[in-house]
Amino acid sequence: MVSQTKHNFIVARTAPSPLLYADTARSADMLYFGRFSVPDPFIAFGVRGKKIAVLNALEFGRAQKSSGFDTVLPLEPWLEKARAKSPKAGAAEVIGLLAKHYKLSAFEVASDFPLALADKLRALGLKLTPVPALFPEREIKTAAEAAALREGNRCSATGIAAAEQFLRRSKIKAGQLMLDGKPLTSERLKTAIEIACLEAGALSIDTIAAGGDQACDPHERGHGPLRAHELIVVDVFPRVTSTGYHGDMTRTFLKGRASEKQQHLVAAVRTAQLAALDAVRAGVNGRHVHQQCLNTFERHGFETKRTPKGSVGFFHGTGHGLGLEVHEAPRMSSVDYILKKGSVVTVEPGLYYPGLGGCRIEDVVQVTDGKPKMLSSYHYDWEIR
Amino acid sequence: MVSQTKHNFIVARTAPSPLLYADTARSADMLYFGRFSVPDPFIAFGVRGKKIAVLNALEFGRAQKSSGFDTVLPLEPWLEKARAKSPKAGAAEVIGLLAKHYKLSAFEVASDFPLALADKLRALGLKLTPVPALFPEREIKTAAEAAALREGNRCSATGIAAAEQFLRRSKIKAGQLMLDGKPLTSERLKTAIEIACLEAGALSIDTIAAGGDQACDPHERGHGPLRAHELIVVDVFPRVTSTGYHGDMTRTFLKGRASEKQQHLVAAVRTAQLAALDAVRAGVNGRHVHQQCLNTFERHGFETKRTPKGSVGFFHGTGHGLGLEVHEAPRMSSVDYILKKGSVVTVEPGLYYPGLGGCRIEDVVQVTDGKPKMLSSYHYDWEIR
Repeated sequence: MVSQTKHNFIVARTAPSPLLYADTARSADMLYFGRFSVPDPFIAFGVRGKKIAVLNALEFGRAQKSSGFDTVLPLEPWLEKARAKSPKAGAAEVIGLLAKHYKLSAFEVASDFPLALADKLRALGLKLTPVPALFPEREIKTAAEAAALREGNRCSATGIAAAEQFLRRSKIKAGQLMLDGKPLTSERLKTAIEIACLEAGALSIDTIAAGGDQACDPHERGHGPLRAHELIVVDVFPRVTSTGYHGDMTRTFLKGRASEKQQHLVAAVRTAQLAALDAVRAGVNGRHVHQQCLNTFERHGFETKRTPKGSVGFFHGTGHGLGLEVHEAPRMSSVDYILKKGSVVTVEPGLYYPGLGGCRIEDVVQVTDGKPKMLSSYHYDWEIR
Repeated sequence: MVSQTKHNFIVARTAPSPLLYADTARSADMLYFGRFSVPDPFIAFGVRGKKIAVLNALEFGRAQKSSGFDTVLPLEPWLEKARAKSPKAGAAEVIGLLAKHYKLSAFEVASDFPLALADKLRALGLKLTPVPALFPEREIKTAAEAAALREGNRCSATGIAAAEQFLRRSKIKAGQLMLDGKPLTSERLKTAIEIACLEAGALSIDTIAAGGDQACDPHERGHGPLRAHELIVVDVFPRVTSTGYHGDMTRTFLKGRASEKQQHLVAAVRTAQLAALDAVRAGVNGRHVHQQCLNTFERHGFETKRTPKGSVGFFHGTGHGLGLEVHEAPRMSSVDYILKKGSVVTVEPGLYYPGLGGCRIEDVVQVTDGKPKMLSSYHYDWEIR
């Protein structure tokens, strides 16, 4: 049955036009919208399904040749027109003129739309509504996007393999790892990973190769000499240069001999990962997936708590969406979030105890109606004698 | 003489508190404020000269150990407190509680402060004023910052040297550059540059190595085989991993034999650069520096114009500030901007004519009361036989 309305006429409803003002290094939305890299902020918007960008002389030619915008307008004449009215006119006044030209009065904008520009646009009478996701379809990855993410993880695996090779080739001397006559440091390991990623076609930023207690701070990247018999967390999340999509994989290694406690720790993390992977499917709450890890750790006797020096145990989410951003929708953590078919998520439980060490194991999967599809591949051997 | 006031009492004036909500990859202000890298957005603010950050368990320990914040608050208890009142509370409600706790009602924010959060904070009764520069002192570089920028340019030079070595080692075969039996491509040159930068301690993103007509689009990074007798623009702006500061240098090379027209073009660009360098000093208008390049090009007969296919000639600014961002204040272009002592700027005129090719030469200097101090160093030989 059709629902009743108070009005007996139909209001013509236009989908709100998206408006963006950003560079593509900072805004994945902008990169998604135009499939075109621009290092400085520019104006882009949608009109009745068409994508329009306004670019200066520096970008105009390249955008016309190779962007995904339907129309590329040159900035300069619009700026001249705006400055004829008001000499100090900028992006706001240009957007004002464009809105008039295209008969638009309301825009949807991303939650991180720049405030100063928004204040000016509202003062010009335009309605701006920030929305949690400007392009909610970004969460559902097409086959081409899944392939790009698989390629990202191939680059991650190449980086992790480079780290493993360094660890295999290293020698233990007085408890310290030595390679080619010099101490093997986190820095050397990270550089080896990043070079391997570059050669594979991806840029690895903020690479993590942290050993011992350093690895107990999950965002500590690692510094200084690496030691034998300590867990070393290697987390590589490069961006494929040709597509902008990421990989995100973590493996934990140990050079030397693992203690029983370390073996117990690593086994619990891998068991938790398998339990989480088993729970991932369309329609499931991310919180439920996260709960599988919490249950596993509880069953294995690994406690999570806050201490005066920071938290210990498992104190981050089980996973996050992966795409043009390293962290994007959905989330699998203690908040409710229903997983959708086609989403791509990391599955990365971890345990961290200063004194014992840290361990995280991370893979990437695409959500389906059944078993998730693995988009990352690397072995799980971690003890390197 | 003291100026008269309408009131016969003194109002206690507090400098407005800065408020930030950003990650340090996207926000140089945040990195400048706390000297601490965090990959996800977090809350930070100033209270009477003290810097306060609110960080989750993932960052808390590391921030306490190694950030420049005076106080690091754990996010979770504040979030719990906010959620006791309103179950869906987030960053806005936490900021509301903190404002109350610290007796703050008004904040200054950066122009790119996220709109959705600003709308919520204003609805909570807080006053937010976006300002063009949250930390105007970022424009004036300390001796330590100048040293970090010099280091950035040492990394740039290392990258450019790697490119030059590849070009020197290449052979010309049927007009194409060959190296180690394979065509020398823009991609190979960029990878060589980026590896050299990594080994020097810096991350080079969006490296440009573009030849022939590709180089006529100044932001085209270059792709495919490089050819002999064509101008190749190499622009390297890496970020030093340990400090976050950048280098930014450009050299233009040619493998083979340059035509007279190409020689004339390159000479004009270098002459323009020297004229601009000669004009850079504290108190001078950036527009005046830019004008020196325009004058030089006019004198040498190089015309700038817009064509249906894009602009030709010299159609970008002469320089920009360099620091934690590749593009920051000041600017030296067609807009008025008085240069301040201690600023660090690029000086990078260029000429671009499809058919003939593009040339840009870029160095970095610190503004003084006299001759600017060079912060970059690399030779200007460009023809490689």
